[in-house]
Parts: sequence; structure tokens; C-alpha cells
Amino acid sequence: MSIKTVSTAKSQGGVQGVYSHASEACGCDMTFAVFVPPQAVKGPCPVLWYLSGLTCTHANVMDKGEYRRIAAELGLIVVCPDTSPRGETVPDDKGDWQFGSGAGFYLDATEAPYDANYRMYSYIIDELPRLVAANFPADMNRQSIFGHSMGGHGALTIALRNPKRFRSCSAFAPIVHPSQADWSAKAFERYLGPNQADWRLHDACSLIEDGYRFSEFLVDQGKADGFLEDGLKPWLLEEACRKAGIPLRLRMQAGYDHSYFFISTFMDDHLRWHGERLGVPEGDVT
Amino acid sequence: MSIKTVSTAKSQGGVQGVYSHASEACGCDMTFAVFVPPQAVKGPCPVLWYLSGLTCTHANVMDKGEYRRIAAELGLIVVCPDTSPRGETVPDDKGDWQFGSGAGFYLDATEAPYDANYRMYSYIIDELPRLVAANFPADMNRQSIFGHSMGGHGALTIALRNPKRFRSCSAFAPIVHPSQADWSAKAFERYLGPNQADWRLHDACSLIEDGYRFSEFLVDQGKADGFLEDGLKPWLLEEACRKAGIPLRLRMQAGYDHSYFFISTFMDDHLRWHGERLGVPEGDVT
Repeated sequence: MSIKTVSTAKSQGGVQGVYSHASEACGCDMTFAVFVPPQAVKGPCPVLWYLSGLTCTHANVMDKGEYRRIAAELGLIVVCPDTSPRGETVPDDKGDWQFGSGAGFYLDATEAPYDANYRMYSYIIDELPRLVAANFPADMNRQSIFGHSMGGHGALTIALRNPKRFRSCSAFAPIVHPSQADWSAKAFERYLGPNQADWRLHDACSLIEDGYRFSEFLVDQGKADGFLEDGLKPWLLEEACRKAGIPLRLRMQAGYDHSYFFISTFMDDHLRWHGERLGVPEGDVT
Repeated sequence: MSIKTVSTAKSQGGVQGVYSHASEACGCDMTFAVFVPPQAVKGPCPVLWYLSGLTCTHANVMDKGEYRRIAAELGLIVVCPDTSPRGETVPDDKGDWQFGSGAGFYLDATEAPYDANYRMYSYIIDELPRLVAANFPADMNRQSIFGHSMGGHGALTIALRNPKRFRSCSAFAPIVHPSQADWSAKAFERYLGPNQADWRLHDACSLIEDGYRFSEFLVDQGKADGFLEDGLKPWLLEEACRKAGIPLRLRMQAGYDHSYFFISTFMDDHLRWHGERLGVPEGDVT
């Protein structure tokens, strides 16, 4: 359970750190980023998990996500994991940005040779929370989760499967039905095998269809997102939520694409939305 | 005077673009970033120039500087140039991060072979403003300038030499006396020759000593900045400003280093400070 500090820097009155550790779940060294807000000197702070999209590491949102100002205002710890196992011993497909390194899809692979390392679901839901609880001033009774694209998929599916752990869940341009989208179905087959029934636990729309529930979702989606029509299709989540009676606030944002220029624009809204549901800032809950 | 659009993305209601052009001043293709705020649909907006530090391109502050939210609120165009000429035909010293590519020092080199391309002063003060005026909804009668480290040096020296053009000037951790600091004096000798009298036009402390004046400066400096004692020495600027009667607000920030985690923390303050002096937001001037 020991972690190594890669770097720390003061920012917005708090500390933005990068840490690494030997991961049992992933069978390799893993790196993650944690922002600890200034309020942590007074006591444990709620934890907001941010899951990143295809090709990203922990660093992309740390550098470009612009979350520290509001996290420091509200008193939120923000944890940004990597998106897959990595390293020379980890099987990969270097020609495919939608599979392997940077494309773990937040699932536990069952197919060889990927099942030894590609266990991002267990990593995010079990190993990393234990590390965070042991090493940071974290109030693990107050957790929320959000993410972008593949990480939006991760946030939605993990929240649906663990509704008691997370007080809120939101997403930027999430992959809502990965088992039926070209850019993710191929990865699912390689990680999980050809039986599509086994894919349903890793697909937000399928989970909702199968009776999994969460209190509510906030989703922002750019209308100028090049992946909108073929890959993301948020209307599928809208339909699934409508049928299941799950409140979904889907905001279609005119002119915005899939980039961090989009994410950072709506980051403040998401942080405040989670903050309200996590009871921060402290003392402001009526 | 034509520019090529490399990319554009909507952000904070405005447009973050990247552009390139064949630079006459630098004898190579140059790339720069421009953020145009939403207010530009109503009419020309003031221009705030951000000059970056050693090793940076236009992209670092665009990705990590977190300037768009307040620039969009105030209605500021933010221009982020590159820090040097680049390309296969441009002489460089790949082993030295303090000279050549990424280290133009915002001066016009006089020594061969660097004098043909390393003309960042002319580029920033003449060629790029003409391009910006011709291609963007810019109110060139309202300009301000700021920057970080080597770019802070650029902002200070360019403001001192052009006090009528810029309404305000600020800096994050600027190099205030480059001709006397180890990490810059060697570059000055290679760009400008051994006669140190020729270096004074490119050194904020020397310029002030020689009678150049500017209305006031705002400087933020991290106390945990590893370059503070040997390279940056803001107290030299403080002493020069005191003697010259130039108001300097020097804020020594406990715990902060030299990174974008520091810059982004104080970016809002600097944008608002420039905004007040540029008369934005429109209508709020008392």
C-alpha cells in the first residue's frame, strides 16, 4: 500500500501531486494524480474521481482540465487515475488507439493475454480507493465520480454498479453504449470475448436496461463533437434513463467539440454540481 | 499578411485558435495562438499579449494557463506567440535549453548566424501586431502585455521600450536582469556579441537605469521557485523601480514554484488587473 511521490506543486492554495505505485490489480506500476485542497488541513475532504478518455494518462486533465480553482474553493480532493495499465510487460496493440495502452475502458478483461493486466474496474473501484484512503486526508464516506468520453463511460458504469458509494455522477461527452459502437465494440470483444451478454456490465445503457439504477446524471455534450453521431449518441442514454425513470440532465452545447477546450468550459458547473451533492463547502448546507 | 488556420475550438463561449504564417522577421514559418472572446461579435476587443518562457511554444499557456474563463468574462483577445524561430533552416543548439529553439529572449540577434532568424523583438512588436490587426477583431488602441519567466523579461522590456503602446504590463516570475544572470548572459553573448552595452536594451533593470519608464508593474513570484535566488532575483527589479519611482507591486507567493500550477493560480488576478487598465468589461469604467 505504499506510494511514491513523483511530484508535488502548490496550486490554488492546495497541492497538485503525482504519485506512482506497484499495482496489484494491473500487475504493473501505475501513476495517478491527486489534488488536495487547502481545506484538508482542517480535516478530511470529500473525494471526486475524474476518469479520462482514450489515449489519456493522469496528466491530460491535470494540465488542461482547469479543475483546481473550484476544487480549492469547495474543498474537494480530485483524483485522476491513468486510463490503462502500461509498461513493457503489458500486452498492447500499438497501432490501435482504441485498444490497449490508454484504452482500458474501466473493465476487467477476461481474455488472455489481457486478463492479467487490464483490470481497470478493480483498480478504480478497489485498489486505488484503498491507496487514497491510506495516503490522503480523504473522507471516503463522501465520494462522487465523473469523466470524459471513455472516462464518462467509466463514470456512468461504475456509478450504476456502485450507487451507494457515489453521491453523484456526471460526464462530458460520455460513451453511453460502448458495446454497440464501432470504436469500442472491437475492444470489448478482445477484452471480454465474443459473448455480448458479458459486455452488459460494462455498458451504461445495458446496465440501466438490466435494472441498475443511479439517483441522477448530469451530462454535457458538444454539438460540434466529431464523435457525436457515430460513437457517442447521448440520445441512447436519454432513452434508457427515460424508460428507467432516472433523472438525466443532458445539455447539448452548441459549437463545442470533444476537446479539453470543451471540458474546461463546463468544468466549473460539474464541480459545483458534485459539490452540492457532497455537502461542500462545509457549513453551507441548508 | 496571410495566415493559415491550424485549428479552432470553441471554449468559454469564444474561440481558441492556432494559426501559422510565413514570418518575414524570423525567416521561417511561425505558429501562434489567439483566443477571441464572445464579445468580439459586437465589436473590436482589447488585445492582451502573453509571452511564454524558456522551452515553451504557443501551446503551453494555451493548454495550461487557464486564461480563457476570465478573458471571456472581460472581453479580452489573448495572443500567445511562440518563443523563438523554429525549423530545419534555423540555426539552433539542441543541447542547450537556454539558447536557440524555445529561447529567443524577445530580442533581435545581431551575431551571425543567429541574426537572420532570431528577431523575436521585431516579430512581437511589429510583424505579429500587424497580422493580428489584419485578421482578428482587435482594438489595437488598447493593448497590454504580460508573460512568464523569459516571457516576463519580454513583457517588461517591451513595455519599457514601448510605453505608449501598452496600457499595462505584468509578469509571473520574470527574468528581470538577464544580462547579469548565468542562465541568460551566455545566450545574450551569442545573440548580441560580447559588448555588454549592447545588451542593455534587452534587460529590464538596465533599461530602467538608462531612463526608460513605464506607468507601473505587477509581478507575482513564487517563494519556492527553484530559479529564484540564482536566476530571477526580483529584488533587483524592486530596487531599480524604487530608484526610478516606478510603482511595482511585487507579490512573493509562499510555497509556489515556477510551473503552470503557479501561473494558473494567479492568472485571474493578472487578467483582472489588465482588464481594469484596458477599460473592460465595457461599460463598467467609472
